[in-house]
Amino acid sequence: MTDLVPTPLQIDFDLWVRLKQARIEAVLDQILPSVQTVPMALHSAMRYSILDGGKRIRALLCYAAAELYCPQPSPTDITLTDIAACALELIHAYSLVHDDMPCMDNDDLRRGKPSCHKQYDDATALLVGDALQSLAFFILSTSNLTNNAQQQLFMLNLLADASGSKGMAGGQAIDLAAVGKPLTQDKLETMHRLKTGVLIEVAVLLGANSAIYSANSDNNHSLALRNFAGNIGLAFQVVDDILDVEADSNTLGKTTGKDAENNKPTYVTLLGLKKAKSYAEQLHTEALLALTPFSDQAQRLQQLANFIMHRSF
Amino acid sequence: MTDLVPTPLQIDFDLWVRLKQARIEAVLDQILPSVQTVPMALHSAMRYSILDGGKRIRALLCYAAAELYCPQPSPTDITLTDIAACALELIHAYSLVHDDMPCMDNDDLRRGKPSCHKQYDDATALLVGDALQSLAFFILSTSNLTNNAQQQLFMLNLLADASGSKGMAGGQAIDLAAVGKPLTQDKLETMHRLKTGVLIEVAVLLGANSAIYSANSDNNHSLALRNFAGNIGLAFQVVDDILDVEADSNTLGKTTGKDAENNKPTYVTLLGLKKAKSYAEQLHTEALLALTPFSDQAQRLQQLANFIMHRSF
Repeated sequence: MTDLVPTPLQIDFDLWVRLKQARIEAVLDQILPSVQTVPMALHSAMRYSILDGGKRIRALLCYAAAELYCPQPSPTDITLTDIAACALELIHAYSLVHDDMPCMDNDDLRRGKPSCHKQYDDATALLVGDALQSLAFFILSTSNLTNNAQQQLFMLNLLADASGSKGMAGGQAIDLAAVGKPLTQDKLETMHRLKTGVLIEVAVLLGANSAIYSANSDNNHSLALRNFAGNIGLAFQVVDDILDVEADSNTLGKTTGKDAENNKPTYVTLLGLKKAKSYAEQLHTEALLALTPFSDQAQRLQQLANFIMHRSF
Repeated sequence: MTDLVPTPLQIDFDLWVRLKQARIEAVLDQILPSVQTVPMALHSAMRYSILDGGKRIRALLCYAAAELYCPQPSPTDITLTDIAACALELIHAYSLVHDDMPCMDNDDLRRGKPSCHKQYDDATALLVGDALQSLAFFILSTSNLTNNAQQQLFMLNLLADASGSKGMAGGQAIDLAAVGKPLTQDKLETMHRLKTGVLIEVAVLLGANSAIYSANSDNNHSLALRNFAGNIGLAFQVVDDILDVEADSNTLGKTTGKDAENNKPTYVTLLGLKKAKSYAEQLHTEALLALTPFSDQAQRLQQLANFIMHRSF
């Protein structure tokens, strides 16, 4: 009898992306309190800020890393990988909502829509971000997800570390302090590693850990994944800086040219456009090289690395 | 041979409070990144916002509930109870930092000092709150705290639920929406239960769970503790409303009369001062009654209930 159901690795990359984006959307929709749940205004604003938008790069990295170890995920049950992917997107969305506020980047446009504080107000945006963060840790601590609470606790610990003052929030603080000041490439890299890179790295690690169900994972694999994720996280940021100069707001779904306007150091202002592009290529190559130990199993991660490099939005 | 070391229950209540306050201060000091850790400005502002201040009511409730099951906690090791108490104080401190911001209550004074956004700036206050929240979940997910990851995950789940849109952040949203509107006592109670009560309830539950190390706790005990905590949480808020009218800013360490100024509904505006006081007494009595199943073991919780009722700050 012929098996007519294609395995995930046989699905075309574009379709895989759309399927995973649809899946994360459905799980987020189920996890977020409905607009009928009190307080309704807050829940409505939370849903506005996370549903129906974004490339879901962190979720995609999480799914792709999970498929290294579990190439046939359950098509119907909500898995620990789904929950990890949602938690990553919740943390990312909270950071965008707070980052767009007037006291931070003061950005009116996000994912092609008015940003949360423009659509609602500053106080609502503050509470939306706060509550999205709590929700990330709430779903990842749900007790019936696995039989391995130790593993789940470890994943939660990684995510909390990546979100806090030594991770994403710390990167934001360095970013704010850097406005109008020239930075060396080292310092710019530290800032971006914290602000964006650490969460992208953790997306890969959470995905892998959600599928292994064991703390005894191969150390070489773990190092290779960190190496891949570190390089691709930085490449992501360099490409972001290039797009901020080259793309238009409609394609990007957020205001372009903001960094220059805000007098923020970027890879383009530091290296110039040409060198920034070749630096992104170099990071991309190193990321792909790091995947060697996984051979063909890492196809999705390779494709995602290419996607991150050549995206136009 | 006579045992000269007094057991915790023999220590005078005032001394017990001071010892526990000193202990939570020491553990928080150890947990918070030093001011030499990058980003230094953020870590300095985080330490400013949580160290050396506050009554630590939530931590005290957590310790008192833990002593129901473990009357002789380790004097030197950092225990799961210490970590739970710190996590509660981190969540509480983050909510105060965000609550004081101009887009929320716009309060310049907190714990007798300039509030975080006055001492630093709005962007720093935003990031301080965000990072304090992450830190709470980071420390509570540290892997070497217990041999019972399931229990720890359950505690983390309770705390995340109490912090989010169906708990504290949700209460803040209802509070904001209520400005200038008359509320029924039912709605005022829903708001306060979410805004303050749920975290106080969870403080008691986390304390008990940190000492039991088993999900099979007596259901009657659990119900009794929830009942105690629910009543004392509400009493705490009624007393807060009374103090906002009767105390002066110096004693209270925060601006008094703010609720009336901001046109916010309170128990005093709803019931009048006299009835608000007798309502607080009624809640206090019900809280003490709920402790009956524990008999003498609940002495600390009784004393804390009295302390919450009769505090002047």
